[in-house]
Order: sequence, then structure tokens, then C-alpha cells
Amino acid sequence: MAAFKPSGIITLTTDFGLADPFVGVMKGSILSRFPGARIVDLTHAIPLHEPRVAGFWISRCFEYFPPGTVHVAVVDPGVGTDRAILCLTARGHALLAPDNGLLELARTRDPDSQTVRLAASALAQLGIHRVSSTFHGRDIFAPVAAELAAGRRAPEGLGAREPSPASGAVGPTRAETGPISGSVVTIDHFGNLITDIEAARLERMAAPRVAIAGRSLRLTRTYGETRRGELLALVNSFDVLEVAQAQGSAAAALGAERGTVVTVEDGPEDLLGGGNRL
Amino acid sequence: MAAFKPSGIITLTTDFGLADPFVGVMKGSILSRFPGARIVDLTHAIPLHEPRVAGFWISRCFEYFPPGTVHVAVVDPGVGTDRAILCLTARGHALLAPDNGLLELARTRDPDSQTVRLAASALAQLGIHRVSSTFHGRDIFAPVAAELAAGRRAPEGLGAREPSPASGAVGPTRAETGPISGSVVTIDHFGNLITDIEAARLERMAAPRVAIAGRSLRLTRTYGETRRGELLALVNSFDVLEVAQAQGSAAAALGAERGTVVTVEDGPEDLLGGGNRL
Amino acid sequence: MAAFKPSGIITLTTDFGLADPFVGVMKGSILSRFPGARIVDLTHAIPLHEPRVAGFWISRCFEYFPPGTVHVAVVDPGVGTDRAILCLTARGHALLAPDNGLLELARTRDPDSQTVRLAASALAQLGIHRVSSTFHGRDIFAPVAAELAAGRRAPEGLGAREPSPASGAVGPTRAETGPISGSVVTIDHFGNLITDIEAARLERMAAPRVAIAGRSLRLTRTYGETRRGELLALVNSFDVLEVAQAQGSAAAALGAERGTVVTVEDGPEDLLGGGNRL
Repeated sequence: MAAFKPSGIITLTTDFGLADPFVGVMKGSILSRFPGARIVDLTHAIPLHEPRVAGFWISRCFEYFPPGTVHVAVVDPGVGTDRAILCLTARGHALLAPDNGLLELARTRDPDSQTVRLAASALAQLGIHRVSSTFHGRDIFAPVAAELAAGRRAPEGLGAREPSPASGAVGPTRAETGPISGSVVTIDHFGNLITDIEAARLERMAAPRVAIAGRSLRLTRTYGETRRGELLALVNSFDVLEVAQAQGSAAAALGAERGTVVTVEDGPEDLLGGGNRL
Repeated sequence: MAAFKPSGIITLTTDFGLADPFVGVMKGSILSRFPGARIVDLTHAIPLHEPRVAGFWISRCFEYFPPGTVHVAVVDPGVGTDRAILCLTARGHALLAPDNGLLELARTRDPDSQTVRLAASALAQLGIHRVSSTFHGRDIFAPVAAELAAGRRAPEGLGAREPSPASGAVGPTRAETGPISGSVVTIDHFGNLITDIEAARLERMAAPRVAIAGRSLRLTRTYGETRRGELLALVNSFDVLEVAQAQGSAAAALGAERGTVVTVEDGPEDLLGGGNRL
Repeated sequence: MAAFKPSGIITLTTDFGLADPFVGVMKGSILSRFPGARIVDLTHAIPLHEPRVAGFWISRCFEYFPPGTVHVAVVDPGVGTDRAILCLTARGHALLAPDNGLLELARTRDPDSQTVRLAASALAQLGIHRVSSTFHGRDIFAPVAAELAAGRRAPEGLGAREPSPASGAVGPTRAETGPISGSVVTIDHFGNLITDIEAARLERMAAPRVAIAGRSLRLTRTYGETRRGELLALVNSFDVLEVAQAQGSAAAALGAERGTVVTVEDGPEDLLGGGNRL
């Protein structure tokens, strides 16, 4: 595990939206403890109460920030209950989130990652006493992130270490055979369908064909010039399978949505060609 | 009054939205005068021309920032007329806004607050000459905030002090009796109904019952576990009464909107129980 | 040409929206190279694949930032093709954008501007090797902007200088006569119709009348008090012609949209008066 040496940068990911001052107030809470913090919004438009989408993006994005960055993700249907808060250290970054599965994908990015469970005693030591039951983003996550980013507290000083998950759950995936099945995790601003199928899983296939919403698309290995309206299945810039439409919305063209099933099979080259046109 | 000692932080609250570059240009104007400014967006989604909503949020949020922060609020239906601009100093913070009532609630947070009315001569001394008639956020508020945050000008150097309001208007509210009446100030991203009824006003009641949209809800004193779909009346993390629905939208469930009337009465415990379920 | 001396500030303008983490990841990419960068969002709501709107706003906004600022604009329907990337130096600022016309208007702001075309060799020297085919914002624009803002690379070190355009295209416009024709470039958050007709072009007219959507409006020289619902044609705070409705949406009132034609004629004072009321 690369040790965590704070860069002074904190990223925020929530389902709070930007219409209310909640994100701004979290920043105030951070700056009140650590005036030198540099704070970057990753996104605040995670679908309400969907930790899985937050976890997907965090796991795909955190390594584009300098090592030593603290990533805070607050998508927290359990706020006000006694669900725990976890701090994951992976590849030199620290990630804070509720214990609701949000950090699972990020954890798999580093076989030497470590996770601690925040202890009430550690919060008390940090002077985090007056905690509302509905806004832990402001009252717990922000001050803890500030202490980590300021270098006044190390991740391992926040609580007891969680046992490592069973070895099968982390590290290289077992060798797969047969078709790959996944789903659309999120639809981006351009209408692109972003799936949870990692590029590495496609490598064993000679001629992957992607099935979605009743259509069959060859995987585009080289991007190159496309014709307006053409559907594309490609490995995107976050190394997952994406279905796009050149200068259009694949979501609209295919009637697809979050959760739509995607499968990939290895097949012979399509003899008819042109199968990606609508 | 805690004196204003600049922290270098400036917050922005407007009804400009984020689709246009107006907020970005205000930041450019600030940074042109004070390159070291750290600028935080509180919200830019205040309903158009509704200073009251901006004033509500500012008054509830400003103290989560470090003392010495400059808070700029531009919700300004009167831009281009000769309405004044005010600078309020409260609890060590400086707040700039048009003279349209926006700062009233923040003023009540500090019995020793002071307000000055910006003088044309002070603007001239600061080199603020070329002022458009439609974008005072960029041309006046931003440069004045920069000068305050940089510590080159004190709030009391911006103009003449306003007379203090009549003593009844500031300080502890008179003792109330009978039902409390208020309204929904704003509906947040989660569909929660946020009212202007302060928690302190509810303390005299043994068993507050909240009436809204034809429903009667007991005030939830402890949050605890809730069932999906359950309606809750609670004191929220900003110390005002809020009506929420567990994992749902109270606004949708109740058909409530901004301005919907809310009343609170002290009443006997509900004998039937379960009254908060839809 | 004012030389480019970096201020450490970078602005971002894209059509990425704020719902996805793409803008956040660009910031991570910048901060990974230049941790001291101060990054300001200009807007991320440019209509999809409309470089013209981005170019309009950039040209109207960049001078409100301190000289030495790097302005990055990524509205790039050609991403993944071999379209070039340009770096314009104008009035002491550096502007980076795809070679799709986006920078044309900004270039006209400085008769001594210079443009270079980014060379693959310069990117290689900067260690920019692993470039996705779909996210040049993160993989090229962000690191190049970071190097410029950090002062480690000058604009002229990024590639070969482009030939200056024909002299007619830059510098003072030829003397115009007759009616002026333009269109609505964008509709802002308030419903104001912002046109591409520069204020300077109206100066030769004694009594400009603005025709749009079947209505004829006198140009309002002084803003002053307006009545709610009144339509106004005025020179706005960005020095272009704008059609607005006092405390209302001109777009809704007139049924106008992006691209709606606007013409201005010099005419006698309207004898009937009151023509701006709906």
C-alpha cells in the first residue's frame, strides 16, 4: 500500500444537487478546520440514494487526482441510523464514505488497500461532538476530511482496521469463459450508456459483439471517423464498455436506461457489415 | 460585535443559475483585484428575484464558514435603479447584498451587528467607476468583496452606518403563546419542505403537532429508524422545522410548494398513533 | 501583443454539463501537474457540440480575468479525429481550444494576437503520451493548460505559428451602412435574448429600432425604471445588443430561440410611443 501523504486536495461526490447550499456549507465546514484546503467537486448529481453509481465513478476517477487526495462521497440513505463510516486507503489516496458498499469498487483498485471503521472515540478526539442526525456531510465527513487533508490525523488513526475481504473478492478476477453480462451504470450528459463491464474482461475475445436493447453491435477497436447517427460500442476513456451514438444520444436511440442489461459474446466477424447503423 | 478580520474567503449566492458564465465572470472580477481569494459557491439557484429565499439560506449558513468570510448575495430585482447596497457585519463575518430585505434574517443572528450603506464616494476611492446598469454582481459586488477579503478596506469604511432597527426587531423574540404559524421557504433537492419556523419557538410546547396540507404530524424528537414513505416533521440540521418523507419527496407526497402554510399547535399525544404514515 | 505571463489561474468552458464527473476529472488532471492552479468554471452548459456559443462567451468574458490566465474551451464534436488544437495569445491571456472556429471571436479582440497549432512533438516533450480517443479535455487540454499556467511552457513553445488571417478579418470592421443583421446567440437564465450584434455597430445610428419576432423596439439608451412586463432592447453588460423583458422572460414573451434573426434599422423617433409594451 502506498502510504497516504496529504496533498491538501479534497474531492466531493454527493447526491445533494447544486440547487441548495448543502455542498457550499460542507466546504465552509472544511475550510473552518483547514483554511488551506483545495476542494474540487467531482459530481453532486448522483441519483438519489444510489451509492453504487457514486462508487462506480469514484473508483474510475480518484487516480486522476494527485496521490494524497482525500475523496469524500456522501450518498447515504442510512444517515441518522448507526451505519458506520469507512476510510479506505488505496494507491496513496484516502476515501471516506458510509458503510453501504460505496467503496467496494475503489477497494479492488489496490490489492494492498486498507480500510478502517471510524470510531466514536476518534471523532471525540477531533472535537466532533455536535452532530445533527440528518447532515453528516457537514458535521462528520467534512471535518474528518479536513483533518486528513491537513495532515493532522492519519487514516489509520481514525479507528480499527476492518478485516480484509475474502481473497476471491479482491485482486485479479478469476478467468472467465462464455458471455459477459453487465448493465448500464449511468447515462452521461451526451446520452452515452456507460456500463460496468471492464475493458480487461473483453481482452480474451477475438471479435466481441455487444447486445443491448435488441441490437447487436461490434466492438469498435479504432474510433476514427464516424457517421452522424451511427451506434458505437467502444471501450471509453474510463476503461469500461460504453455504447454511444455519433453526435447523438444512444439512450434516446435505444430507449435504454440505468440498469439496462448488456451482454458481450465472442462471435465471428459479422458478414453483413454495417450493423451499427440505426 | 466581533470585529471583521478577513479570512480571504468569499462566498457567492445568486439567482444567476450556472448555465451562463455570469458567476464565472464575477470570480474573474474578484481575482483581478485579489488573486489570493478563495471563492465558494453557496448556491446560484435562488428562485428568480426572491431575495427572501437567499436571505433565509445566508442567515442559516454563514456561520459554518470561518469568521472573516465575506458573503456576497446578489438577488436583485432592482439592479439599475438607485437601490442601495448594504454591508452587514455580524459575528465576525461581512455580508454584502442589495437593500431589499435580503440581510434582515442574518442581522438578527447578532444583536451587536452593524450595517453600512455603500457610498458612491467609497466606490470611487476603490476605483469602481465603470459600472454597467445590469450587472452589479460583476461591477460592484465582486470588487468590493475583493477589497474586503484582501483586508484593504474595512466594512465601516464603505459608507455611513445605518441606524439600528427598533429594538423589538432584533434580539430575543417576545414570548409567544398559542399556535405558531409559518410557511415553506424552500423545497430542497430531496423534496424536503423547509420552513421558516425556528426550533427555539417550539421549545415551549410539550407535544407539538404540525399541520400542513391537510395533514397533522407529530414532531419527531428522535430521528432513529424510519419506514420508507413515512412522513416526518422534525427540526433539521439548520435548526428550523422541516417536513420530510423517508426516502421520498414530501413535496410530491403532500402537493406542497414554496409558500404553503404550516402551523404548529401544542396538543395531547396522539392516541391513535401511526399518524405519520401516508 | 501583450506577452503571456502566467497568473496561475485556469478557466474551463465545456459542453460537458455538471452531472457527470468529467469536469472534476479535468481538474484532477490539472492539479496532478500543477498543484497550485486556481481553477474557475466559466460554464459547462454550452449547448452540445456548439463551438460558436462557447466562442461567443469566451470572447466576451476572458478579459474580466487577470492577464496571464489560461482559458480552456472544450466543445469538440471532432474529438478522436485529427482536428488540431490551437493556442491563441490575446491581450496577455492564453486560450486553448479545438480548431473548429471557437477562437475566432476572441482573436478579433486583439489585432496583435498570435495563434499556434499544437504539435505532437510538443505534447511528447510534455510527457503527454497516453491519450484516449474520447476525452481530450482530460488527456490533452488539462495537462497543456497546467504547463502554461505553471509557467513551465510558453504558448509559442507548443507548436508552429499559424499564419495571420487576411487583414480584413481582424481589426476594425469596415464602415457599415444600412440595416444591421444578426441573430440570438444564446438565451440566458433570465430568458434574455443575447445577440451577436456589437454595441459599436449601433453607434452610427441616431435612433436605432430593433426588429425581432415581428416586434419593433426602440433601443433603450438609459435603463432607469421599467414596468414589469415591458420589453427592452438594450446594450447589455457584455457590450452586445440584448432583448429583455423587465422581470420576465423575453424568450417566452416573444417565442424566440437561439438563431432567431434580429435586425436593427435607423429610423425616426416613434411618434406613438409606448411601443415596448406587450
